[in-house]
Amino acid sequence: MEFIKLISVPSPTKIVLMVIDGLGGLPNPETGKTELETANTPNLDKLVSNGTCGLIDPISPGITPGSGPGHLALFGYNPVRFNIGRGVLEALGIDFDLQPEDVAARGNFCTVDKAGLVTDRRAGRISTGECTKLCQLLDGLVIDEVRLLVSPVREHRFVVVFRGERLIPAVSESDPQQVGIAPKPITALTPEASRMADVANQFINKAKAILAEHHPANMVLLRGFSQRPQLPTMNEVYKLKPAVIASYPMYRGLAKLVGMEVLGTGTSIEDELATLKDNYTSYDFFFLHVKGTDSAGEDGDFDRKVKIIEQVDGALLSLISLEPDVVVITGDHSTPALLKGHSWHPVPILLYSKWCRRDGVKEFSESACVSGGLGRFPATQIMPLAMANALKLTKFGA
Amino acid sequence: MEFIKLISVPSPTKIVLMVIDGLGGLPNPETGKTELETANTPNLDKLVSNGTCGLIDPISPGITPGSGPGHLALFGYNPVRFNIGRGVLEALGIDFDLQPEDVAARGNFCTVDKAGLVTDRRAGRISTGECTKLCQLLDGLVIDEVRLLVSPVREHRFVVVFRGERLIPAVSESDPQQVGIAPKPITALTPEASRMADVANQFINKAKAILAEHHPANMVLLRGFSQRPQLPTMNEVYKLKPAVIASYPMYRGLAKLVGMEVLGTGTSIEDELATLKDNYTSYDFFFLHVKGTDSAGEDGDFDRKVKIIEQVDGALLSLISLEPDVVVITGDHSTPALLKGHSWHPVPILLYSKWCRRDGVKEFSESACVSGGLGRFPATQIMPLAMANALKLTKFGA
Repeated sequence: MEFIKLISVPSPTKIVLMVIDGLGGLPNPETGKTELETANTPNLDKLVSNGTCGLIDPISPGITPGSGPGHLALFGYNPVRFNIGRGVLEALGIDFDLQPEDVAARGNFCTVDKAGLVTDRRAGRISTGECTKLCQLLDGLVIDEVRLLVSPVREHRFVVVFRGERLIPAVSESDPQQVGIAPKPITALTPEASRMADVANQFINKAKAILAEHHPANMVLLRGFSQRPQLPTMNEVYKLKPAVIASYPMYRGLAKLVGMEVLGTGTSIEDELATLKDNYTSYDFFFLHVKGTDSAGEDGDFDRKVKIIEQVDGALLSLISLEPDVVVITGDHSTPALLKGHSWHPVPILLYSKWCRRDGVKEFSESACVSGGLGRFPATQIMPLAMANALKLTKFGA
Repeated sequence: MEFIKLISVPSPTKIVLMVIDGLGGLPNPETGKTELETANTPNLDKLVSNGTCGLIDPISPGITPGSGPGHLALFGYNPVRFNIGRGVLEALGIDFDLQPEDVAARGNFCTVDKAGLVTDRRAGRISTGECTKLCQLLDGLVIDEVRLLVSPVREHRFVVVFRGERLIPAVSESDPQQVGIAPKPITALTPEASRMADVANQFINKAKAILAEHHPANMVLLRGFSQRPQLPTMNEVYKLKPAVIASYPMYRGLAKLVGMEVLGTGTSIEDELATLKDNYTSYDFFFLHVKGTDSAGEDGDFDRKVKIIEQVDGALLSLISLEPDVVVITGDHSTPALLKGHSWHPVPILLYSKWCRRDGVKEFSESACVSGGLGRFPATQIMPLAMANALKLTKFGA
């Protein structure tokens, strides 16, 4: 990354990175074809015919990435070195404006019995409405000059942000991960984190008192204490002026971590592409995120995933009509409907530019990308490739 | 590299590495074929049919290498770790015999006005003859016990070598990179380099006085201060007795940096192959360099690049008749005529040996090499592969 920083130069060319979340799949046993292979995708196929393709490993072969590392890798950041904690990710997911010194933790409302032992780690999955009310009871507490900001997420899940000085997130979790035992006290993992542990334990005790009469949500469990990672911005590394177009908050949040500007957009793929068109002259790098494919994969809904890929294909014409210098289309990981979750399978990628070397592949699919000219490569190399094809990198060495 | 050193063993088998400079290309828009694909290459095709092939990334995907890093990678040296400064490269390019403690800088004759502001960074591109005369005026000065060796390169370009004790090249450049401002004073970037900066500034002042009446070449600009990198020799690492056959000085110079012996040769490909034949029994590793392909690519001359590839193909029979144990043919980078310069595109490579595993590829071309048995891999892995195929590497571990 220091290396790319040395050779990157600003230029007026434009790059569009479209991430079809969870794009890669596994074959339907009845047809032998994956979701992408089943979908009718004339526009993707045309783009790959004029471009080049391959397969990416978001982290490395065999490793199933979460959304955080999956996207960091696409942006060219080492996803193992720059770890995003669960608390931070949860905060990004509700568009919470995390400050650099904030410590965020993921919270569950849970149920404890009279002896204080956990009987349900999710408090019977209370409604999001109930969760919102309970969060209001806890929000705004001040403990040892640390302000507690408690926000609902969904059902029993919430985020607590500790805002104050000298807070180090190196602390253990209170969630015992099983029922029948008491929540664990939070302990400092380094001497410097003792203040954080102390404040967190005080918060848990206050929450227990406040929630006493709110069975089944009469206690909280906290985990994933973390701070925003300190990432160099994409402007510093690549000298780009980057923007994100994503209807889901978490992806906007991830993009903000690397310094992208957030463009307001509607929820459909067409909305996102309209936003691209409206802002096309103001930026030179766009990260466009499509969520539906991943959700369908997670639900095990093969046919819905196929349909969303076809929607993306249909909407693609308005992207192509803008004539970006470089178009990259890929996913942050695979989400095969058969596995109902993220997986380790490499993800198809296509790259189109005037300067890419065509490889004769005529179809955008897992099988066809095996023979692509880009080969199989780590996702962190996408950005250097896209930058090169946009003529935004100078020669290394004489 | 330390690892290869542990397992390499001397043996009588012979390796020939033929580097066709800037070999990789991009398709001619009219035919859809690259320079290599357009060329009629029966001998290369036969060799690849009996061998195996693939694509190399000289540095990593998306990175366009200069000749220095491109060749170091081919010789198995990490091209990012072992950086060759511009001054050193320029000195190698004129066959200057750099000593380990010498500091070399690249110089331009330039024009300054009465106020001392640069009006032409290249002094109207004076002739090489004029440059040679001016260099003689500056050559041989002694400043604080440092001897100045000034040699012409071409047109306004020259090399200055500072030969003396305690010279550290960590200094800034005097070239302001634009006209209308004065040359910058050279400053030490570390405390140890203050002597170097002081001597360089004294030299620049003396040069200004000496050149005062030589308008337009009435001043000098210096950049790229550097020392020879300390590289382990190929003999130390691979236990080879290596030789270089190259008609261009810079490539001989690069080869000398890694301990190759320089064999005198003529300028044509046939001359180089005759040199190979004459010296075949005396060495076990030959680096043979073909320059014309890169020059044609840089000139944007697609057809000339095709023709030179065909010349190489014709000359190949005399190489094959020597029956080397391992033949590797590749380039140090791509130089597509369409881009008129080095590029980031991966470079075709073929490897022939009795022990390689054939891959069914019948044609040496960018497209065909995508399906080659070697896959796509970093250029630094070529030497271990060549060594293995020459049975010069022992088993690692029991």
